[in-house]
Amino acid sequence: MRQSPHSRREQAMELGMIGLGRMGANMAQRLVRGGHRVAGFDSSAESRARAAQNGIEPATSLAELVAALKPPRALWLMVPAGAPVDQTIDALLALLAPGDVIVDGGNSMYKDTLRRAQRLAEREIHYVDCGTSGGVWGLEEGYSLMIGGDEAAVAKLAPVFATLATAPDRGWGRVGPVGSGHFAKMVHNGIEYGMMQAYAEGFSILEHKREFALDLAQIAGIWRHGSVVRSWLLDLIADALAENPQMTGIAPWVADSGEGRWTLAEAIELGVSAPVTAAALLERIRSRDKDSFSDKLLAAMRNQFGGHEIRKE
Amino acid sequence: MRQSPHSRREQAMELGMIGLGRMGANMAQRLVRGGHRVAGFDSSAESRARAAQNGIEPATSLAELVAALKPPRALWLMVPAGAPVDQTIDALLALLAPGDVIVDGGNSMYKDTLRRAQRLAEREIHYVDCGTSGGVWGLEEGYSLMIGGDEAAVAKLAPVFATLATAPDRGWGRVGPVGSGHFAKMVHNGIEYGMMQAYAEGFSILEHKREFALDLAQIAGIWRHGSVVRSWLLDLIADALAENPQMTGIAPWVADSGEGRWTLAEAIELGVSAPVTAAALLERIRSRDKDSFSDKLLAAMRNQFGGHEIRKE
Repeated sequence: MRQSPHSRREQAMELGMIGLGRMGANMAQRLVRGGHRVAGFDSSAESRARAAQNGIEPATSLAELVAALKPPRALWLMVPAGAPVDQTIDALLALLAPGDVIVDGGNSMYKDTLRRAQRLAEREIHYVDCGTSGGVWGLEEGYSLMIGGDEAAVAKLAPVFATLATAPDRGWGRVGPVGSGHFAKMVHNGIEYGMMQAYAEGFSILEHKREFALDLAQIAGIWRHGSVVRSWLLDLIADALAENPQMTGIAPWVADSGEGRWTLAEAIELGVSAPVTAAALLERIRSRDKDSFSDKLLAAMRNQFGGHEIRKE
Repeated sequence: MRQSPHSRREQAMELGMIGLGRMGANMAQRLVRGGHRVAGFDSSAESRARAAQNGIEPATSLAELVAALKPPRALWLMVPAGAPVDQTIDALLALLAPGDVIVDGGNSMYKDTLRRAQRLAEREIHYVDCGTSGGVWGLEEGYSLMIGGDEAAVAKLAPVFATLATAPDRGWGRVGPVGSGHFAKMVHNGIEYGMMQAYAEGFSILEHKREFALDLAQIAGIWRHGSVVRSWLLDLIADALAENPQMTGIAPWVADSGEGRWTLAEAIELGVSAPVTAAALLERIRSRDKDSFSDKLLAAMRNQFGGHEIRKE
């Protein structure tokens, strides 16, 4: 990990990480490695114990976590989007003081973020949203951070962002007022849906062209160097195809975790045509519909008007 | 440029480049830099003169080009896909001898390649297809090469591929029999369509969210480091947005050069659902339809059944 021009002592901050799951634990660990003091809370004793092994000071309750930090405090939420964020904020409101800052580093819907920021502002607690990309690779490679919030609040947290990012001077930035960080992350994930589907379709076409007996991992490997479609996702695809060329044991069932839907809804609200984003999302939904009513109805219509045969179940 | 473990003398080949346009001239120049002897033909005197300045031996006719090479000869076609390839092969047939090899490095339709290979095989001339990605950046960074053809013919040309690729040991490979290189390149471009459209939609959504006043070049810059959507295309997007944030002076009109269509046709032929590839292609077609009949008909239908207002031209 690169060091910033500042010394560790100058940069060192203390921070409370709430949620020590895959993302939160890795981010807390990267902060500890960067010289910051990190206290951490998770309701799972196992998660707390694992975090403690990586230099994170475990707290068994939010009250204990808050008590472990000197005001003005910085609390970083890394909990699932939705109700868990509101519940955590509810609990924190009884514990925090004016001047403290809460960072939501999860994939919250930006409209929820706007609402929460307003509520916390009434209590003079700053709210900063930090869209976080990088997945499980972020611990070693660093994260890409899209940050929304008051300029002063974001500036105070700069040493933390500089440590979490791929380098102190890149891969992070305040993109606008509160909400804008989560908005940018939402769109990032919408793009991700389209890119992933584009690769998936292409490799499926290659796979179906049996007469050429193509080695998909080889082709992905060639494309990684010098081609127009080279990307980090392609690097992962090359690894996945090398390990498991036939995708053996993987069900053709794809989840979606919200941000693709929100991106499409936002596109519609803003009057932006986004057919690739839409198609990528709908393909995921279709992947989960193994007993498609619309397919049955289409077959029934063909039978009605043309007497075309229906395949029986 | 990296050197292979072999000395230049061992690697050096001679090759005739046919077509000294943007791609052909750059590839010929990279080969000259790599120690190969390259003669080049183009019908444009200006292209020949420019190539000569870069160490390429200019020929004013195909006959002169062929005469400049010792048999067995290697001729590399870098001419537009379609009729120009057939016309060049027609002309070469009178000049070449058994054992010579023609490489088609352009974006030919793979079915044309299969037909041409069969025709040339009757004359004992080898035909190798080389899907070439990398654009104008290839001269300095190297190309990504997907190669189809007989193993022996491809192996003989290995020093040429090793020089053109990003490094001697990566970014190129024989992916299968003749036709498979162009097939892989076709699918590569199909993926490119989907990826480009995914980015375009995402950045358009960011651009339309006026309340956040987002700096698109900044966000692209953040995403370049550590994010899941980082890619070479994103690097180019970041540069384009930094230079021209409002896309000023660029008409919203997008060409398509064939490979997107072929990819979609192939998906249909193979029974592969490829909605993102389809949507990306159709968006390009729509970008050119400024007087959409279907939009007019939709407005007319709404007026017919609901009395909804029609916007007059």
